[in-house]
Amino acid sequence: MVLKRWLVGDPLKSTQAPHERLSKTLALAIFSSNAISSVAYATEEILLVLVLAGTAAIAWSIPISFAILFLVVVLTISYRQIIYEYPEGGGAYIVSRNNLGELPALIAAAALMIDYVLTVAVSVAAGIAALTSAVPSLFAHRETLGLAASVFIIVMNLRGVRESGKFFAVPTYFAIGALGVMVLVGSIQTLFGQGVSLSPDHQMAVEELTLFLILRSFAAGCSAVTGMEVISNGVKAFRRPESQNASTTMIHMSLVLAALFMGISFLAYHYGILPKTDETVVSQLARLTFGTGALYYALQVGTMLLLVLAANSAFAGFPHLASILARDGYMPRQMATFGDRLVFSNGIIILGIFACVLLLLFHGDTHALIPLYAVGVFISFTFAQAGMVRRWLIKKGPHWRKQLLVNGVGAVTTGIATIIIASTKFTHGAWIVFLLILVLVMMFRSIHSHYKAVSEQVALTRDHRPPLPRRNIVIVPINGVNQAVIRAVDYARSRAGEIRAVMVDVDPESTARIQIQWAQWGCGVNLIALPSPYRSVMGSLLDYIEEILEKEPDIWVTVVIPEILPAHWWQSILHNQRALLLKTALLFKERVILTDVPFHLKR
Amino acid sequence: MVLKRWLVGDPLKSTQAPHERLSKTLALAIFSSNAISSVAYATEEILLVLVLAGTAAIAWSIPISFAILFLVVVLTISYRQIIYEYPEGGGAYIVSRNNLGELPALIAAAALMIDYVLTVAVSVAAGIAALTSAVPSLFAHRETLGLAASVFIIVMNLRGVRESGKFFAVPTYFAIGALGVMVLVGSIQTLFGQGVSLSPDHQMAVEELTLFLILRSFAAGCSAVTGMEVISNGVKAFRRPESQNASTTMIHMSLVLAALFMGISFLAYHYGILPKTDETVVSQLARLTFGTGALYYALQVGTMLLLVLAANSAFAGFPHLASILARDGYMPRQMATFGDRLVFSNGIIILGIFACVLLLLFHGDTHALIPLYAVGVFISFTFAQAGMVRRWLIKKGPHWRKQLLVNGVGAVTTGIATIIIASTKFTHGAWIVFLLILVLVMMFRSIHSHYKAVSEQVALTRDHRPPLPRRNIVIVPINGVNQAVIRAVDYARSRAGEIRAVMVDVDPESTARIQIQWAQWGCGVNLIALPSPYRSVMGSLLDYIEEILEKEPDIWVTVVIPEILPAHWWQSILHNQRALLLKTALLFKERVILTDVPFHLKR
Repeated sequence: MVLKRWLVGDPLKSTQAPHERLSKTLALAIFSSNAISSVAYATEEILLVLVLAGTAAIAWSIPISFAILFLVVVLTISYRQIIYEYPEGGGAYIVSRNNLGELPALIAAAALMIDYVLTVAVSVAAGIAALTSAVPSLFAHRETLGLAASVFIIVMNLRGVRESGKFFAVPTYFAIGALGVMVLVGSIQTLFGQGVSLSPDHQMAVEELTLFLILRSFAAGCSAVTGMEVISNGVKAFRRPESQNASTTMIHMSLVLAALFMGISFLAYHYGILPKTDETVVSQLARLTFGTGALYYALQVGTMLLLVLAANSAFAGFPHLASILARDGYMPRQMATFGDRLVFSNGIIILGIFACVLLLLFHGDTHALIPLYAVGVFISFTFAQAGMVRRWLIKKGPHWRKQLLVNGVGAVTTGIATIIIASTKFTHGAWIVFLLILVLVMMFRSIHSHYKAVSEQVALTRDHRPPLPRRNIVIVPINGVNQAVIRAVDYARSRAGEIRAVMVDVDPESTARIQIQWAQWGCGVNLIALPSPYRSVMGSLLDYIEEILEKEPDIWVTVVIPEILPAHWWQSILHNQRALLLKTALLFKERVILTDVPFHLKR
Repeated sequence: MVLKRWLVGDPLKSTQAPHERLSKTLALAIFSSNAISSVAYATEEILLVLVLAGTAAIAWSIPISFAILFLVVVLTISYRQIIYEYPEGGGAYIVSRNNLGELPALIAAAALMIDYVLTVAVSVAAGIAALTSAVPSLFAHRETLGLAASVFIIVMNLRGVRESGKFFAVPTYFAIGALGVMVLVGSIQTLFGQGVSLSPDHQMAVEELTLFLILRSFAAGCSAVTGMEVISNGVKAFRRPESQNASTTMIHMSLVLAALFMGISFLAYHYGILPKTDETVVSQLARLTFGTGALYYALQVGTMLLLVLAANSAFAGFPHLASILARDGYMPRQMATFGDRLVFSNGIIILGIFACVLLLLFHGDTHALIPLYAVGVFISFTFAQAGMVRRWLIKKGPHWRKQLLVNGVGAVTTGIATIIIASTKFTHGAWIVFLLILVLVMMFRSIHSHYKAVSEQVALTRDHRPPLPRRNIVIVPINGVNQAVIRAVDYARSRAGEIRAVMVDVDPESTARIQIQWAQWGCGVNLIALPSPYRSVMGSLLDYIEEILEKEPDIWVTVVIPEILPAHWWQSILHNQRALLLKTALLFKERVILTDVPFHLKR
C-alpha cells in the first residue's frame, strides 16, 4: 500500500475532477505526441519499401510524401467537424454508434483498441531505435530497454492525467523544437548548397518498381497520420470552451506534423539517405546536418523521449474508449470504474500488458511491427467519416452541404487509403489485425448479450411480490471441540433459526469424546452425529443437507463453517481444505447460504 | 464427474477395506517390481562407469556384482526382522522415529520420498529405453513417451490398489519369466560353448582405473537394490498372517532379483557387451541370446512393461508414507485423507507431478537420473538398521544377541555403502538430493510446529468459559434494487439482529431513484445512504463498518453480500469484482462475518 501510494500518489477527491482539465499547451503535449512522433519513422518506412526496387526508386518518396500530406489536410479539416459536433468526445466509436449502428461502431472500437496497443509498441520500439542509433552498444539490449520504458510509462500513467501532462510536456516540446531546428538548418544548408550530399552506394533492386510496391510504400508511410484522431476522443479533457480549444490544438498539431514530415522526407531524399538496420534515417540526417556533436545527441534524446512518451497518448485514449464501451455494456463493468487517481487504472494496466507482449513477440523491432500498424486507425477513420456523412444527410442543419462535402471527401479519401493499406499489408501481418477485430467484436457482443440476459433475469417486474419471510435452519459442521468451533457456534446462536451442530461419525471413539466435550462447551446447541458408510465426511454432510432441502422446500439452510484463518498466506495450504471442498460442493445449491466464521491465528 | 468415475471407478464403502488385502502373488507383483526391474539397468550402469577406464576394466564388473549380491543378502535378512517387529508397516521412518528420535526419522522419511520420485522417473525412463532399443525410430520421442507412460500409471493408481495388482501382475510375471528364460538360455549356451562371443572394439581409456572409479561403479550398481524396502513399508496390505506372508514374499523377491542380476552381469561380461547410447545392455544381450526374433521382442516388451509398472510400487509406497507423516503432523493434513477409491489420491497426484517434472528436466534419460538415485534409499536403509540395533539394545528380548548381530551387520554394511554412494556421486548430482532432504526436513518441522501452534491457540483450557450471546448487526450493501438484492435482504431478514441495507451515494439522482424503489421492495428494512467524498464505494463502506465496530465493541457485524452467480465460469470476470474487493478488505477484521447470498443465473 505504501509502495502504491509512493508510485501513484494520494487519492483525489471527486470534487477535484474539473481541475484536471488540460490547457491547450498541456493537451498538445499529451494528445499530439502520438501523431507528431511518427515523423521519426514514417519517412524511413517509405524508403524501406522503395529501396527494394533499387536506389533509383527512392525518388518516389517525394510524391508519396505529398499524398500523405494530402491525407493530413483532409483529416484535419474533417475531424474538426467531429470535434464541434461531438464535444463530449468519443471519436469513431461514438460517431459510428450514433449514425451507423452497433456493428460498425464495434468494428471501429475494436480497430481503435488494437491500434492503441500497436501505438504503444511501435512508439516504444522506435524510441529505443533512436537511442541505439546514437549509442550502438545498446542495440543488443533493445528488447529489455523497450520493456523498461513501457513499465515506466505505465507507472507514470497510473499517477494520473495532469501530472502526466506536466511530466511529458517538457520533453515533447523539446523534441519538437530539436526536430524543427534540424529541418530548418538542413533546409538552409540545402538552399545555400552547403549540405554534404552523400553519393549513396547503389543498391541492387530485388523487386521491380511496380504500382503495388509504390502503394505498399504509401501504406507504410501512412503510419505518419496515426494518432490524429486522439484529440477528437478526448475533447472533454480540454478547458472550456472545449471544442474551440480542441480544434485549435488539432490545427497546431497538424501544422507541426506536416512541417516536420515533409521536411524530413525532402532532406532525406536530397541527402540520398538509405535506411540502415542499426541507425534510423532521422539519426543519419541529424549527423549530416549537425555532425556527431552535442546538437546531434540532443536531437536523438529528444526524439527518443518524444517517441517513448508518444505511447502516453494511447494511455489516455485506450482506457477512455474502454470505459465508454464498459458503460455501454460491451466490456467488463470494472473497466468503467475510476481508479483512485481519477484515471481508468484497469484500462491502463491491460493496455500496458498487451503492448509489452507485442514488444516481446516482435523483439522490439519497429519494422516488424509496422505491417500491423495503421490498419485499425484507417478503418476507424473511415467509419467516423462515413458516420458524419450519414449524420449530415439526416440532420440537414445550416451549412449541411458544405459539411457533407468535407466529411464526404474525408470518407472517400480514408476509405481508399484503408483499401490500399489493407490490401498491400494483408499478407505481411495485417490479417492478424482483421482476425483480432473479429475476435474483439464477438467478445463485445457476447459480453453485451450476457449483461442483457443478467439484467432481464434480476429485473423486478409487476409479477414479483416482496418475498414472505422464510424459516432458517443453521448447520454448523464440526470435527472436534476447540475455540474455532465454539466461536462459530456462538456466532450461529446470534441468529434466528434452528441451530444444529453436525459431525460425521468416522471413528466411534472420537465421536464419544467429542460428545462429552460438547456437553460442556456446546452453548446448549444440539449435536447430531451422522453415520458415514463410505468414510466420506463430505458425502455424509452433503447427503444430510440435501435431505433437509428436500424435506422442507420452503426454508433457508445456512451452513456456518468454522474456519482457521492463518497469520501467513503460505499456511493456508495447511488448513481449511475440507471447508473449501464443502463450499465448492454447496455453491450451486439454491437456498443454501454459506457463512465462514474465521478464527484468526496470531502466529 | 462422469469422466472421473469412468477413469477411477466407483467409490468404495469403508467396510470394503479388509477385502483390499493382497495375496502373496499379487503383492510380489506390486511390491517387488521396483527391486526386480532394476536388473534392466543396474549392470549397464556398472559398465558405463568402468568403460571410462577402457575395455580391460570391464572385468571389475564381476567382483562389483558380487558385492551387490552381498548387499541383497544382508538387506533381505535384516529387513525380515523389521517386518516381524513392525507388522503395522512404515519402514525406515517408523523404525527411526520409535528408536532414534524425530530428526533421524524425518531425514529417513525425506530421503525415502525423494527416492520414490526418482524411482518413478528412472523406471519410466529405463522402460522407454527398452522400447527404443527394440524400435530405434522412437528414440527421438522418448520424453513424450515417458510422460505418456507416467500419466497412464497415475490414472491406473487412482483406480485403487487391488485393481492395480491385477492389472500389473500379468506383465510383471511375464517379464520375470522372459528375463529368466534369457538368463537360462544364455547360461546353457555359455556352458556348452555355443554362445556367440563378441570381440568388442577396444575402447580407449579416458580415465585411470582408480579405486574411486571402482567405487563409483559400485555406487551406480547399487541402484539394483533400490526398492527392497518397499515390502517392509506395506506389511499391512498383506493377507493374514501379514508378517509371515510379507517375509516370504521378500525372500522370493530377493531370489529373483539376485538370480537375474548376477545372470545378466555374468553373461554381459562373457559376451563382452559394452554400453551403447541407443541400445540397452539387456537388449544387446537378448539379441545375442535369442537373435532379433519374436523371443527378443517379447523380452523387450516384457522388460518395458516391468519397468514402467515398477514405478507403480512407488505409487503404493509414497502416498502411504505421506499419510503416516500427515497423521503425525509433518505433512498437510489432507495427505492423510482417503480418496474415494480407498487410496491416498493426493499423494499419488503429487508423486506423479514431481516424477513428470524430473522426466522433463532430465529429458527422459536414465543415465542422467542415476547419479541422483539410490542415495536416499541407502540413507533410509542405514537409519532403519541403526534404529533396529538401538531397539535390540534397549529391549533385550529372547535371541537379542542374534538379532543385534543381524541388524548390526546390516547397519554397518548399508552405512559403508551410503558413504561410498554419497561420496562418489556427490559432485555428479547427489548434492541435489542432500539439499532436497534438508529442505524437506525443514518443511516437515515447520509444518509440525505450525500445527502445534494452532492446536495451542484453539485449545479450550480451564480459563475459558462458554461465550455469552452477543448482538448482531446485519449490513446488506446494495447498489440498486433487483432480484439479487431483494433475495439478500430477504435472507438477512431470516436472521436475528438489526438489519440495515447500505448504499453509497455516488450520484444523487440514482440514489433518489433507488430510495423510491426501496420503499416498495425493501421488505421494511432500513436503507442508509452513505456519503462518498472520494467517489470510492469501497472506502465509504469500510469506513462505515469500522465505525460500527468501534462504537460497539461487543457485537458481531454480519455483512450479507448479494452476489450474481454466473451459469458459466468465464462469465465470472464480468461480475462481483466489487464483492471480491469487499471480502478481501473485510477478511481480517475480527467480529466481521461475511455471507454471500448467491443469485443463480440460468444463462
